[in-house]
Amino acid sequence: MTRPLWLDPDRFFPAEPAARSLARQLFAEVERAPILSPHGHTDPAWFASNEPFEDAVSLLLWPDHYLLRLLVSQGVPLESLGLRPKDDTPFETDRRAIWRQFAGHYHLFRGTPSRLWLDHVFAELFRIKVRLEPETADSYFDIINTALADPGFRPRALFEHFGIEALATTEGALDPLHHHRAIRASGWPGRVIPTFRPDDVVDPDREDFATNLHRLGELTGEDTSRWSGYLAALAARRAFFRAHGATATDHGHPTARTADVMKNEAEALFDRILCGRGRLGDAELFRAQMLTEMALMACEDGMVMQLHPGSWRNHNSWLLHRFGRDMGADIPTRTDYTGGLKPLLDRVGMRADFTLILFTLDESTYARELAPLAGHYPCLRLGPPWWFNDSPEGMLRFRRQTTETAGFYNAAGFNDDTRAFLSIPARHDLARRIDCAYLSELVLTGRLAEDEAAELAHDLSYNLARAAYRL
Amino acid sequence: MTRPLWLDPDRFFPAEPAARSLARQLFAEVERAPILSPHGHTDPAWFASNEPFEDAVSLLLWPDHYLLRLLVSQGVPLESLGLRPKDDTPFETDRRAIWRQFAGHYHLFRGTPSRLWLDHVFAELFRIKVRLEPETADSYFDIINTALADPGFRPRALFEHFGIEALATTEGALDPLHHHRAIRASGWPGRVIPTFRPDDVVDPDREDFATNLHRLGELTGEDTSRWSGYLAALAARRAFFRAHGATATDHGHPTARTADVMKNEAEALFDRILCGRGRLGDAELFRAQMLTEMALMACEDGMVMQLHPGSWRNHNSWLLHRFGRDMGADIPTRTDYTGGLKPLLDRVGMRADFTLILFTLDESTYARELAPLAGHYPCLRLGPPWWFNDSPEGMLRFRRQTTETAGFYNAAGFNDDTRAFLSIPARHDLARRIDCAYLSELVLTGRLAEDEAAELAHDLSYNLARAAYRL
Amino acid sequence: MTRPLWLDPDRFFPAEPAARSLARQLFAEVERAPILSPHGHTDPAWFASNEPFEDAVSLLLWPDHYLLRLLVSQGVPLESLGLRPKDDTPFETDRRAIWRQFAGHYHLFRGTPSRLWLDHVFAELFRIKVRLEPETADSYFDIINTALADPGFRPRALFEHFGIEALATTEGALDPLHHHRAIRASGWPGRVIPTFRPDDVVDPDREDFATNLHRLGELTGEDTSRWSGYLAALAARRAFFRAHGATATDHGHPTARTADVMKNEAEALFDRILCGRGRLGDAELFRAQMLTEMALMACEDGMVMQLHPGSWRNHNSWLLHRFGRDMGADIPTRTDYTGGLKPLLDRVGMRADFTLILFTLDESTYARELAPLAGHYPCLRLGPPWWFNDSPEGMLRFRRQTTETAGFYNAAGFNDDTRAFLSIPARHDLARRIDCAYLSELVLTGRLAEDEAAELAHDLSYNLARAAYRL
Repeated sequence: MTRPLWLDPDRFFPAEPAARSLARQLFAEVERAPILSPHGHTDPAWFASNEPFEDAVSLLLWPDHYLLRLLVSQGVPLESLGLRPKDDTPFETDRRAIWRQFAGHYHLFRGTPSRLWLDHVFAELFRIKVRLEPETADSYFDIINTALADPGFRPRALFEHFGIEALATTEGALDPLHHHRAIRASGWPGRVIPTFRPDDVVDPDREDFATNLHRLGELTGEDTSRWSGYLAALAARRAFFRAHGATATDHGHPTARTADVMKNEAEALFDRILCGRGRLGDAELFRAQMLTEMALMACEDGMVMQLHPGSWRNHNSWLLHRFGRDMGADIPTRTDYTGGLKPLLDRVGMRADFTLILFTLDESTYARELAPLAGHYPCLRLGPPWWFNDSPEGMLRFRRQTTETAGFYNAAGFNDDTRAFLSIPARHDLARRIDCAYLSELVLTGRLAEDEAAELAHDLSYNLARAAYRL
Repeated sequence: MTRPLWLDPDRFFPAEPAARSLARQLFAEVERAPILSPHGHTDPAWFASNEPFEDAVSLLLWPDHYLLRLLVSQGVPLESLGLRPKDDTPFETDRRAIWRQFAGHYHLFRGTPSRLWLDHVFAELFRIKVRLEPETADSYFDIINTALADPGFRPRALFEHFGIEALATTEGALDPLHHHRAIRASGWPGRVIPTFRPDDVVDPDREDFATNLHRLGELTGEDTSRWSGYLAALAARRAFFRAHGATATDHGHPTARTADVMKNEAEALFDRILCGRGRLGDAELFRAQMLTEMALMACEDGMVMQLHPGSWRNHNSWLLHRFGRDMGADIPTRTDYTGGLKPLLDRVGMRADFTLILFTLDESTYARELAPLAGHYPCLRLGPPWWFNDSPEGMLRFRRQTTETAGFYNAAGFNDDTRAFLSIPARHDLARRIDCAYLSELVLTGRLAEDEAAELAHDLSYNLARAAYRL
Repeated sequence: MTRPLWLDPDRFFPAEPAARSLARQLFAEVERAPILSPHGHTDPAWFASNEPFEDAVSLLLWPDHYLLRLLVSQGVPLESLGLRPKDDTPFETDRRAIWRQFAGHYHLFRGTPSRLWLDHVFAELFRIKVRLEPETADSYFDIINTALADPGFRPRALFEHFGIEALATTEGALDPLHHHRAIRASGWPGRVIPTFRPDDVVDPDREDFATNLHRLGELTGEDTSRWSGYLAALAARRAFFRAHGATATDHGHPTARTADVMKNEAEALFDRILCGRGRLGDAELFRAQMLTEMALMACEDGMVMQLHPGSWRNHNSWLLHRFGRDMGADIPTRTDYTGGLKPLLDRVGMRADFTLILFTLDESTYARELAPLAGHYPCLRLGPPWWFNDSPEGMLRFRRQTTETAGFYNAAGFNDDTRAFLSIPARHDLARRIDCAYLSELVLTGRLAEDEAAELAHDLSYNLARAAYRL
């Protein structure tokens, strides 16, 4: 017996009928608005080569650390999902067997957004009518793989089918941006742009930091063994990214700490670190200083700055040693914005020509720190609920805890932030529905006029992202 | 085309019809209850002189840092709003032009309580029927200014019209309370009372601390260069305030830390600070000790103590230098109550004749620290949601996160905490409606009997504030 | 005039009619499911002796620190409730007078779960039809005391009447488990099992630590003055508890810090502490190390480990000195799990044969730390909302803030965690209703299929607890 896969046309709207009706009406006006995806992790090679996607496993399961982490949490070995251990121990290579393993644990995703996104993809894109479970695993595998061979499922065709107006990928500072150049050279009009993410040349705690700085010097012809040359090299790479269409930078730091030390102090700090004579706290201070340096460069070159702090990367040592980085083992930590950002804000906080978009994994900062900061400093905008908070309840908490202090117009619109390309429409569908749900509640409880809600639905779905990211 | 300004008679009630109906019924019984405003920042000079208010800008915009901060956040220069920079650079002086600037950005306040309060004032007090927007800015300006010239809009007339039974203002320890004396001497029966806020003579980090202590000595005839004289002077000022009707003190500290050191240690600490030989941490320790000293004096003189911790005052250095203090740039920080308050509570926590009302800007402490503390120590009461949390969602979070542990009776009722005098009825209206909404949800979900909800509606609107503040 | 006591048959379900109807339907299927109570504090002597309970005061009021704390918070002296001060000052001994005192303050519990649990006990167990208030205090006292004399109200009869399938009590490491042995020896089939809680021999800050270690050595024949003997003694006590039916251990620590130091470091640490030469931080480090040691033993012997961190025990010094420990004066503190647990998780986090159930009093960690951790590490499960959060709103916050990241299957089901035996059915009734309310909301908003909700209702009510505690 198989069970139906069914997308409720009123999904995510309030249960109360009057609010539901209004939410439905608001959503109808924005459902088909173009998709702006100004922050994400899709692979530009897909759009450069436009080759067909390989299969269900490599497209839907492997790149999605939301799925891997929950499967691991219930004791499913990564080897059984086809992940290759760094040693030479065996791992599953039969894709169908891997897909069955996934299907056999699909009930674990009940109540999670992964389930909502995947069901949306299965139902809307692949037109599957039954639920994924052990009995339907093979049928799913065949339907998906067959579809992927169809020209309509090639990356560029899907990009157009999804109604994506602009899509930003994310690259390290040393990335040559070959794929982005190839996309442009191909004449295909899809707007796929890079994002400058210089963590690899900004974080002294990385093992490859010295190597990366050396390579940074080679790429730019600057002397990156000196502070001034290092800064010049970074400015050059920013220009290089801008020339390839980038409008934004992104910064993934352990904390939100910033600094604004004197130039000679910064030079001395840089020298200590490069010579391997860094003191306790130097790495953190260097990262802090670099956020301010990046902000200053942004004031010059007009790139929008994004800060994603507060994640303890690769928390699971065993997994890190056995499978490497980014296997779904990042765990959030408490984050301080009020104190952390002050040095940067004292320097450039009042510049209305500079934009710093703040993200958080620490929701306790929404009402306490982020909304008050964004509701005051002209340069600040609040990024959408990030990562673990990119979910129906997470989005509602974000709106409820930030809007009353920061208003709607200090938010930066939605990011899908995904490497799961097929889920992009599902994620925007969810975000737009939740925003319409929230707006309808405001109207129904006398907190907003209906015409304003309609205007805001457009702003939240499209206009705010376009303005914040200067698209 | 202008759009209607419309106050939903069921505003802030739950959307679900049965809950809404019950909320409406509960609210009808408390809608007209007298207003107690035991904590706020209105200007006693208004009631002493009873002169007409000047105009819309100086009455509604300038004193309201909620408005200034959000306008600044979207790049509106304070100069364009008529704020005078400390240097001699130009600023807008045309009040009508300022009002237009405000009206042109009124959409920024969508979803914020400022919008709800202002619309209430516009509709209920000024009987305006259209929304504030660029097209209606002039008409608003004229209507409001014309009304303010009417005798019915003078401060005392409005005080009576609003049904205010008692209104507390807030004054520094050195304030001569001339206005309060003048109010009493005038024979006008309105109860406007001061609140003793000694931060200016308790916080060694203030630049004017030494000057203030000197002045404190002059006012009281005590030797404020010695610990015992300093304490005696504070006791004298408390008595002076009490003689002018004060029932409460208020303390705005960076943290909730308290201390209870030995007398000789306190003397040595005081001496170090006065001689400018304070060590790292001395200022914080002194403030901590002074909270306990104030609590001990409260046990003697019966004044109710209020603590407002956790605000990083004047976080924006640029703004501070250019426009001075209190321009809407205070940002909350994490606050520790469990550890911070222990020394004070160990000393006087079990005194049922002492009341300490706790406020917070850190909602993560509601369920974790404040409700457990207030649900145990006889001296503690929870102040209402403060500042950024004085909003529909903020109030609901407060009730939902504190009531189950602390009950209703360890809360201190509502404070409007405003310098925006005209908004006082709007703020109490909002608070009472949200409380009735919360109560109706409890009844509808079988958690409270209807007769108890009706009793509680009165308690939350009036009785708890009266008891907590000993009015 | 007395007022009716009425349990709403739809209590705790959503107010919206469609959601309510579905919640009712889901609940009907689990309402009568057997009760698993895998963590609690009832007295095994009750079931060993099966003597009648004494009276209303000693059964319902005295053991319930939720009641004592709220009464104290409103100035009710513990002496007036019959608690005996450590000095020889007078206290109330008339049980009826004590009950009247309690009844006179019953309105304080409005809006708290204590009220919901007690009303359930009064209505369902004692069949009382009127509300507890001063007018009905005597009648309540008589009805309850009369009932308690009835054979049907003896501990074992109630255990069976309540449909309890297994009940875990909590004992210190030195407990001889006489009562558990007596229960087994009696032939009564009720499953009452101990839980191994070794805080008394693991926390060096306890005054009786040295004495307890000495006694531990006597009980086990191990040399507990040496690290290896100490560990062997603990392993022996675990085996002793297991032989008496225990499946779990429990650990109440001030923080969630763990450590994994080298064996010689651990030995040196143990020696320093035992010789009274402990340095600053040694006690915390020792507790941290012991959590990892307990985890390692759990990997060996299969006992499930529970961690209850973040409570500042006996925060009220005055009360501690006057009445002793555990008088309702424990206050939560902020807790760090992401950093705190890493050493333990690095050691045994990936062991799927080990289970560590995490509890918290710091809800800000639900979405930020606990759900991400439990949604990744195979050994982790989330305990239900604990203590102050064991309430309708607290349970909903738990589900809403953990499910989207950790799913449903990384939660450990419900614990009643009570010493108030009579309230066990009321607490499970509340938890099951709230879970059904949450599930119905997911279905109504298109986030879960109805058949899945029905399956989950059973899992949350019974299956998850059984699996997590290996019952």
